[in-house]
Parts: sequence; C-alpha cells; structure tokens
Amino acid sequence: MRALHQSFSVPFEYQVLFTQHLFETTNHTLLQLLEGSDGPAKVFFVIDDGVDEAHPQLQQHIEDYCTHHNSTINLLAPPMVVPGGEASKNEHQHYEEVLKAVDNHGICRHSYLLAIGGGAVLDMVGFAAANAHRGVRHVRIPTTVLAQNDSGVGVKNGINAFGKKNFFGSFAPPYAVINDSHFLTTLDERDWRSGMSEAVKVALIKDPIFFEQLENDATALNQRDAAAMDRLIHRCAELHLAHIGGADPFEKGTSRPLDFGHWSAHKLEQMSNYLIRHGEAVAIGIALDVVYSHLDERISLADAQRVLNLFHTLGFELYTPHLEREALLGGLQEFREHLGGRLTIMLLESIGRGVEVHEVDEEKVKAAIQFLKNGGHATE
Amino acid sequence: MRALHQSFSVPFEYQVLFTQHLFETTNHTLLQLLEGSDGPAKVFFVIDDGVDEAHPQLQQHIEDYCTHHNSTINLLAPPMVVPGGEASKNEHQHYEEVLKAVDNHGICRHSYLLAIGGGAVLDMVGFAAANAHRGVRHVRIPTTVLAQNDSGVGVKNGINAFGKKNFFGSFAPPYAVINDSHFLTTLDERDWRSGMSEAVKVALIKDPIFFEQLENDATALNQRDAAAMDRLIHRCAELHLAHIGGADPFEKGTSRPLDFGHWSAHKLEQMSNYLIRHGEAVAIGIALDVVYSHLDERISLADAQRVLNLFHTLGFELYTPHLEREALLGGLQEFREHLGGRLTIMLLESIGRGVEVHEVDEEKVKAAIQFLKNGGHATE
Repeated sequence: MRALHQSFSVPFEYQVLFTQHLFETTNHTLLQLLEGSDGPAKVFFVIDDGVDEAHPQLQQHIEDYCTHHNSTINLLAPPMVVPGGEASKNEHQHYEEVLKAVDNHGICRHSYLLAIGGGAVLDMVGFAAANAHRGVRHVRIPTTVLAQNDSGVGVKNGINAFGKKNFFGSFAPPYAVINDSHFLTTLDERDWRSGMSEAVKVALIKDPIFFEQLENDATALNQRDAAAMDRLIHRCAELHLAHIGGADPFEKGTSRPLDFGHWSAHKLEQMSNYLIRHGEAVAIGIALDVVYSHLDERISLADAQRVLNLFHTLGFELYTPHLEREALLGGLQEFREHLGGRLTIMLLESIGRGVEVHEVDEEKVKAAIQFLKNGGHATE
Repeated sequence: MRALHQSFSVPFEYQVLFTQHLFETTNHTLLQLLEGSDGPAKVFFVIDDGVDEAHPQLQQHIEDYCTHHNSTINLLAPPMVVPGGEASKNEHQHYEEVLKAVDNHGICRHSYLLAIGGGAVLDMVGFAAANAHRGVRHVRIPTTVLAQNDSGVGVKNGINAFGKKNFFGSFAPPYAVINDSHFLTTLDERDWRSGMSEAVKVALIKDPIFFEQLENDATALNQRDAAAMDRLIHRCAELHLAHIGGADPFEKGTSRPLDFGHWSAHKLEQMSNYLIRHGEAVAIGIALDVVYSHLDERISLADAQRVLNLFHTLGFELYTPHLEREALLGGLQEFREHLGGRLTIMLLESIGRGVEVHEVDEEKVKAAIQFLKNGGHATE
C-alpha cells in the first residue's frame, strides 16, 4: 500500500502574568503584552456580569486605559457583558453573540479577544476565540480563585451541550493570562472558598510540601488573608502549568491526573442544576475519592482524615444528598466516554502522590459516601 | 512583575493512505488503521449525498465490511447522509446533527468519526469531530480530486457563517486520510476538472518540474486518464503535506502561500452563491494573480500565457462576469481580516516560485480582469 507520512510539532507558549489594578493607567502589564503590532492592537473585551456588578467602574476604567494608551491599543467597541457562571456555557446564545461581535467589529487573527471573569465565562469566550477565523488571540483575565489558579491558566475551553459539561470544546492555548489579585477582594464567600479545592487536589497528587503549606495557611485562608491566597494561587498555577507542559498537553491519552475527584464532581454539578459550584463539587469529589482510596487500602485512615480536616478548616461541606442518588454512578460512564475508551481514575497512594486505576468498585463508592455522610466516620 | 512562563510542543502525525475499493472485504487498509484498540473500534460514518447517489451500494458495503470484520470494527449505527457541497457548511443543522450523533451513539475521544465525501463535507464533519469532547478521532475519506490532493489531506476544517467561508473553524489534524481512487470514476466532469486547479497552484509556487509534468499530462487529464490523475494527486498531496509540515502548520503568521489565487476565489464563490465551485474559482483566481504578476512586471508575458494555456488545455473557463462586480475587491479586505492584521498576497516571481507582497494595486487588478475577459490578451 502506498502511503504518505505526515509528522510535525506545533510549539505553543504563553505567560501567566501577576498584577494588581490592571487598568490603572500607570499599570503597563497589558500595554507590554500588546506592543509590537503594526499600528495599535485591536482589542475587544467580554466581561462576566458578576464582575461588572462588583466593579461598576470597570468598563469606564477600561475605556480610559485604552484612550490613554491609544497609540498601542485600539478599543474596537465598548465591552460586552455576559452572564457569569454555567449559564454562559449552557445557553449557546452567549457563545453566538461573541462570534457575532467578532464579525461585526472585524476582529481578525491578530486582534485580541479579552475575557474578564470566572472560569465559565473564560471557557465560553475561549471556545469562541478558538473557532472564529480558526483562532483569534485570546487573553484571559480570570477573576476568581478557581480561574486564577486552575482553569484560567490552562489550555482547555468549552461550552455545555446535551446536558453534559464541556461536550463542545477544544484545546487552544491562550495568548496570555493576567491574574489581577484585586478582583479577588470582591468575591463572595463561596467563590473565595470554592476555588481552593483545586489547590488541595494538585497538592494531593503532586506536591506533599504544598499540602503542608495549605495546612499551615488553612485558617488564614478561611479568614480571607490575601498573602496566603497569593501563595496558594501562585503555587497551584505553577503546578498546573508544569503538568500541562508535560507529556500530553492536549490529552491524547486517557491519563488525566488533574481530573482527580472530578468524575463525581461533574455529575454533582449537573444533578444540582449547577447550584453546587464547581469548586464545591470538586471538594466533595476529592473527599469521596480520598475516602475510597482508604477503603481500597491505599492510604491510612489518618491520612484520609488529614485531607478531610484540611477541607473542614477551609470551610468546605463534604456531603450533599445528591451523592446518594442513583444517577451519581452514571458519572463514571460519562467520564469514561469523555476520556475515550478506557476508564481511568486517579486515586491516592499517599499524600502528594496519585495512582491511576481502571476499575471502580461501586460498593466501596457507596461506603465512602456513607463515611462522608457520617461526618468522616466509618458506618460500622 | 511576576510571571510564569509556559512553553511546550504538541506532536502530530497521520498517514495519507492510497487504495482502491476500500470496502471490499479483502481490502485491509481500514482494518490495519483501526487495529490495536482495547476491543473493537467504535466507528460512525457520515456520507456526502452525492457519493451516496453515485455509489448506491456503498452503505451496504460498509455494513458488510464492518460485519465481516466485527472483531476489529464496531459499527455504531447506519451511516448518516448529509448534503454535499457548500450546503453542508452553510446550513449549520448538518454540523449540529453530526454532533447530536456523537452524543446519541456514545462516540468518545477514542472512537472514530469517518467522513466520506467532497472537501466541504470533510470540512464540516472535521469541525464537528474537533469540537465534540474536545476532539474525537476523525478519518477523512475524500472522494473528489480537490479533496484527495488538497483540502482533505490538510489540517484545517470549518463551516461558513455571516456569509463568509470558513468563518468558524480550527486546525485539527485528522487521525488518518484514505484516498480511494475508485471514487473518482463517478465524478461529473466539473468535479473531475475543478480539483486540478490546486495542483496547478502548488506547482506554480513550489515545483517547476511538477508544472512541466502537468503540461505533459494536460491532454490526458482532460480526457480522464486515471494514471495521469494518480500522478497529479500523489505529487500534489505530497507537496501539500510538506508545506503543512514546514514552518507554520497552524498558520500563526500571516504568510499563506497555499492561498495563492484564493483572495478572489473565495469571493467569487460567495458572489455566485457557490454556483462556481471552489476549484473553478481557484483557477480563475490563479489566472488573475498570474496576469497581475505579469502586469506588475514580475513574470514575462510568455510565462503568463503558459499558465493560461495549461488551464485551457485542462478545460477551465478563466472569466466570469462576477470578476467585474465592485464587490470583488472587498475580497481583499475579507482576506486580510481572515489572515489577521497585514494583507499578504502571493504572486509569482517565476513558474515554480512564489513571492509575497503586502499591497495590491486595484487598477492593475482591473487590467488583469480585462486581460482575462479578452481571452488572454492585453486590452490595448
């Protein structure tokens, strides 16, 4: 048989920049990012309505910033405001409106589509940016703990369809990410807290020292200490980036360590109609798989308790009645389909070290749920 | 300013396989491609209605093939038939139906979504495959000259929106491409011919020897000689793959040599409501830019005539009244937007060698149009 063999590598790079008060005219973070085009860079902003409400001056600050720096920045139109949270991914009209704006404003492959908001808005705008003209430059400005330490710094985007999270999506590295810590000051308590579960996750599977740092900072984090949060976000983002830059950035295999605790988390979000937030669901999902790891004789009871204690100190609830609904275990099948082919689930071998398994014992899952229901005690 | 720097490369590879009668049970091309999974590979086919009509036994052959080889192949459902040509990219319901099928049949990231058809159907199914679950395995089985030598072997997909070709799309290498020459035997005359314009294009900008081969084969090609077409497709696909595997597979820069002749071609297709086929429009677009290259004193009149003669011997028309409509020049602006930023157009420096320019003189474009209208003679 005749055949032509094609083989090439595509290099990607981007920076995650840390700043405060991005749109103060003296802040040059964005300016430096956009310099170097032929003429002023064409930019368009999409803003999460939650951020827009919490920062009523933001749109004005953006316009002032762009006017002040108009030799470098060409603001194509006033920012577009879209609903925050899963609504932005569930209702496809928002995705379509962003695409329409790309057409209306002549946003090209060398223009910048910037999104300011929580992870859901970044996912939706990122998916639109990836698909318009086969990819316009996308700058993410995450405003939640979750987005700044995890989802916003990665390479995935997506919207929901057929009742399934991220059914549509792609791998498309951003042009850059800018973490502005000032946005964290206006987060409500749930958003402040819920983002921390991804930090616990990545510490548990990759970095025992970071886990200890989280234990030491836990009370301060629960009391909204900015310096402790800064440490958490920086280290979590760093571990996240290191993982993505590793063996399989676009997840061609079935190994998905960063999805530790996520098979049930995705399902819990969906079963609760997204009343349980992603980070809250992830905390429960991790707790479940940590207890499962103990019941499966992989980690000690003491280690499992250490994880549950950390979550409790951070202020997380680790039980919801949704855990006991039959549909929960359907999440395993959906997770397998999403991964493709073979079920691959991360469990713990020790604190700081994950291990992949390909089978899950439903009876042990149920026992782990009872353990969580009893506040962290075995039923017998 | 603190920053984390992310940098990685993603390797891609795939094969373009050449065969005849792919679904004869003794043909092992597809079988070898799908072997090696855990259990039978899950497959789903989408077929261009033009191919379905020209090959009324095809669906049955596919089912028989999969049944015969059911230890390797698990045919999830009967093939889905979609309209061929630009309708499949213009009407988004076909794209959405393919996505629905992905959900209904549990097609996962390790399943295979195979498309059999012309370039438009492959583009549409490829875009759906790229976006479902962030990418399911996509096997292209191109059935036209154009798709076998050019669009079907590359890394782009897309659908049309806002009256613009490929407004939505992405870069997503296929899992494999299978060129079955038997499909070419039932092509109508226009489809047989029109695909050859991309071969002329790639010869003109990259390979003077290939251009001479086309001149030598031109009469045979016009008379539907299978061996001559086989030579054309193989060499054209090879040059196309070599280009993609070169400096910029995902076209991050503005250089786009393979779009030689395409700025006007895309616009002509759209202005004619796609009554002018892509390959026909490309022949006109190339002829226009070849004459422009002469009027711009880059190539001799003799060389320009050589190109026009080749197109004439192959049976192409090189003039359409759409060329004289005001809207044509709007194609330059749309092309610039699609590229991003700076206009970059390929012209000829000699036969076999292209040169990029960043400005186009509208008066010379109009003169080139008159040149084509007069059948290849200057107006004065």
